[in-house]
Amino acid sequence: MTQALLFDLVATDPGSNARAGRMTTPHGTVHTPVFMPVGTQGTVKTLTPADLEDADAEIILGNTYHLFLRPGHELVRRMKGLHGFINWNRPILTDSGGYQVFSLTDLKKITEEGVTFQSHIDGSRHLFTPESVMEIETALGADIVMPLDECTPYPCDYDYARKSAAMTLRWAERCRKRFDELENLRAAPQALFGIVQGSAYEDLRAENARTLVEMGFDGYAIGGLSIGEPKSTMGNVIDLTVGYLPQDRPRYLMGAGTPEDLIDAVGRGLDMFDCVIPTREGRNGALYTRFGRININNARFKEDPAPVDEACPCYACRTFSRAYLRHLYHAGEILGPRMGTLHNVTFFVGLARQMRQAILNGVFAAWSQAFLHTYNTRKGGETE
Amino acid sequence: MTQALLFDLVATDPGSNARAGRMTTPHGTVHTPVFMPVGTQGTVKTLTPADLEDADAEIILGNTYHLFLRPGHELVRRMKGLHGFINWNRPILTDSGGYQVFSLTDLKKITEEGVTFQSHIDGSRHLFTPESVMEIETALGADIVMPLDECTPYPCDYDYARKSAAMTLRWAERCRKRFDELENLRAAPQALFGIVQGSAYEDLRAENARTLVEMGFDGYAIGGLSIGEPKSTMGNVIDLTVGYLPQDRPRYLMGAGTPEDLIDAVGRGLDMFDCVIPTREGRNGALYTRFGRININNARFKEDPAPVDEACPCYACRTFSRAYLRHLYHAGEILGPRMGTLHNVTFFVGLARQMRQAILNGVFAAWSQAFLHTYNTRKGGETE
Repeated sequence: MTQALLFDLVATDPGSNARAGRMTTPHGTVHTPVFMPVGTQGTVKTLTPADLEDADAEIILGNTYHLFLRPGHELVRRMKGLHGFINWNRPILTDSGGYQVFSLTDLKKITEEGVTFQSHIDGSRHLFTPESVMEIETALGADIVMPLDECTPYPCDYDYARKSAAMTLRWAERCRKRFDELENLRAAPQALFGIVQGSAYEDLRAENARTLVEMGFDGYAIGGLSIGEPKSTMGNVIDLTVGYLPQDRPRYLMGAGTPEDLIDAVGRGLDMFDCVIPTREGRNGALYTRFGRININNARFKEDPAPVDEACPCYACRTFSRAYLRHLYHAGEILGPRMGTLHNVTFFVGLARQMRQAILNGVFAAWSQAFLHTYNTRKGGETE
Repeated sequence: MTQALLFDLVATDPGSNARAGRMTTPHGTVHTPVFMPVGTQGTVKTLTPADLEDADAEIILGNTYHLFLRPGHELVRRMKGLHGFINWNRPILTDSGGYQVFSLTDLKKITEEGVTFQSHIDGSRHLFTPESVMEIETALGADIVMPLDECTPYPCDYDYARKSAAMTLRWAERCRKRFDELENLRAAPQALFGIVQGSAYEDLRAENARTLVEMGFDGYAIGGLSIGEPKSTMGNVIDLTVGYLPQDRPRYLMGAGTPEDLIDAVGRGLDMFDCVIPTREGRNGALYTRFGRININNARFKEDPAPVDEACPCYACRTFSRAYLRHLYHAGEILGPRMGTLHNVTFFVGLARQMRQAILNGVFAAWSQAFLHTYNTRKGGETE
C-alpha cells in the first residue's frame, strides 16, 4: 500500500460514531470531517482558487469523465497535472468517471471489460476500463483517486445488484493492480480508495466492504447512496458498512448531500463528503443559512438590507445585501451566481468545520441538535 | 454651479493636446486620463467591487435606463443610493439613459417634451423627460450625472441633426434647471455635465459647445461619436469641439473605444472614457495584450503555458495559463468570462494610467508611438 495518504484519528465523539481526523497528502493536510467542493471541469463553477481558499476549502474534486473528454487527460498531464493546470495547490480527489458515464451519457454498454459510452458533448464513442481509468487518473495526478465502479440505480433488483457488486469488486482488483503498475509515472504519490457498492442489500454491502478491506485501500468510499433512496435506507447502509471499515482509514460518502444528510452521516462515522448542491443551487439562488435555505429570488428580499447570513464570513455576506443579490439574479447578472456559489461553498465547508470542532469538544450530539433546531424551525432565514 | 467636482489640470503634454488632471468628487479622487468600466445594471458584469479596486478602477458607470427599469431608482435611493446598493465607495457616473432608449427599445417617440419608449424587459411604456431623468439620477446619487440628450445615428442628414442638436440644447437647459431645484434631495453633492451633440457637422458642434459652455456645466462630454463614423470624422469633431471647451473642466468622450481610439482621443485633449469593449469582448474571449488583441478560443492557445500578458498585474495573468483560460471558455465555464473581463478591465484602466504617466513625463507622443508599434505589429499577442 502506498504511503501517499496518512490518516490520523484525532478524536472520537463520546455520544455518537462521529470522529475527527487529519489526512496528510502530498499537497497538504485535510482536517476531517471535510466537505469537498466539486470542480467538475477543472473549476468549481464561477470560483477561483483564491475564492476557494477564502472559503477555507482544503480539498476539491475533479471529474475524470469531464476532464477526459475536455481538455483531455494527456493535455492536463503536459500542463503539470490537474494541480498545475488549474493552479490549485491543495489536495484534489478525482472520481472514476463511472457515475457520469451512467448518468450523463446515452448508449452506454457495460461488460466485464468496462463500459462503452458516447460523449455528451459530441457523441464520440469511448471505452472506460478499470485499467484505462487508472491511467487517466494517473495523468490527472490527484492526491486521491477513485476506482471504476458501477453505481446501480435505486431501486435495483437483487439479482442485478449482486452481479453488479461482484463485478465492481473484480474491477476494484484490476484497478488496484494497474494503479500499482503505474507507480513510476507519478510526479507525486497518489492514494487509491475502494468503493463499497451493493445497493440497499445488507449482505451485498457486507461482502463488498469485507472484500475491499482485504484487498487494502488508502481509504473507503460508500457509493450508490444519495440517489433517491429513503433516508432510513441511507442510514442503515452507512451503519452496516462502517462496521466493516477500519478505524484508521478515511471514509468517504460519495455525492451527499444536504446539511441534514452531512450531519447524520458524520454522526455515523463518515469523514469526507462531496456534493454539487452548494454550487448548483447557488447558481439558482437557493442560499444556505443557519436559519435554513432561502430562495433569494423571493419578493420578500426585494428591499432587505441584511446580508444572506450575518454570521457568514464570505465576501458576499460581508459586502452585499439580500436586496442587491436578488437584483443580480433577477437581472441575469453573473455576479449573482458567483456570489451565491461562494456563499454556499463557504457554508458547506464551514458546516464540516463546525462539526469537527464539536467533535473535538466532545459535544457533537448537542451541537447537531442545536444546529438542526435553528436550521429547521427558523424557516426561511429570518434574521434575529 | 455646484462645487461637487473640482478639476485640477496637473500637466499638459508639450507634443500634443494631451493633459493629465485630477478630479475631486465626494467619493474620492479620479486621476485623468481615466477609463471608466461600465456597470450597466449596478455591476460591472462578472466583477465585484474588490475586483474593480484590484484593477485600479477609480470610477465606474451606471446606466440610468437599466437601473430605472430594474430594480427601480426609488428602491436604489432607499438602499442608500447606488453607492450603497452596489457597495462601491469610489466615484460613479450615471448616463442619462438616452443612448439605451435609442438603441435598445422599440416604439420610441421623441417629442419636445421627452422620449416615450417601451421597456426591452417587459414592454411596459415609459416617458423620460429632461426633468424626470434628473430626478432619477438624483435618486441614484452618482457623483457625476449626465443630462438627457438625443444621440443621433450616423450618418444623419443636416436638417435632422440641426433640429436634434437644438432640442438637445433646450433639454440641457431644462436638465440644468431641474438639477439645481433638486439640490436639497441630495445626500452628497452631484456634478452635472453637458453633452455636445451635432453629428458630423462642424457648425452644429460649434454652436452646441459654445452654448453649453455659456450655460455652465461641471464638465463637458462629446456624444454621438463611436457609432460607426470614420476615424477621421471622430478626430475632426473632437478637435473642433475641444477648441470651444474650457481648459479647467474635464472632457469626456462617451462610448469610446478601442485602445487606438483612446490614445488618439487623449492626444486631442480628452480626459474621460467609457466603453463596453473590455467587458463585452472579455466575456467572448477577446483579450487585450500589449501585443494586440487575442482570441483565447483559438486552437494555438490549446497548450500555451504563458499567461495572457506576462506584464499584466491582474489575478488571471498571475494565476492561469492561456491553455487553462481557453479550456474554461470552451467548456462554457463562467470563470472564463469572469477572468477575461477582469483582465480586459485591468488592461483598459492600466492603459489610461500609462497615458497619464507619459503625459506627466512629457513624453506622450513617443510613448503612444512605441505602444502602438508593439500593439499593431506583434500581431496576436505572441510573447517575446
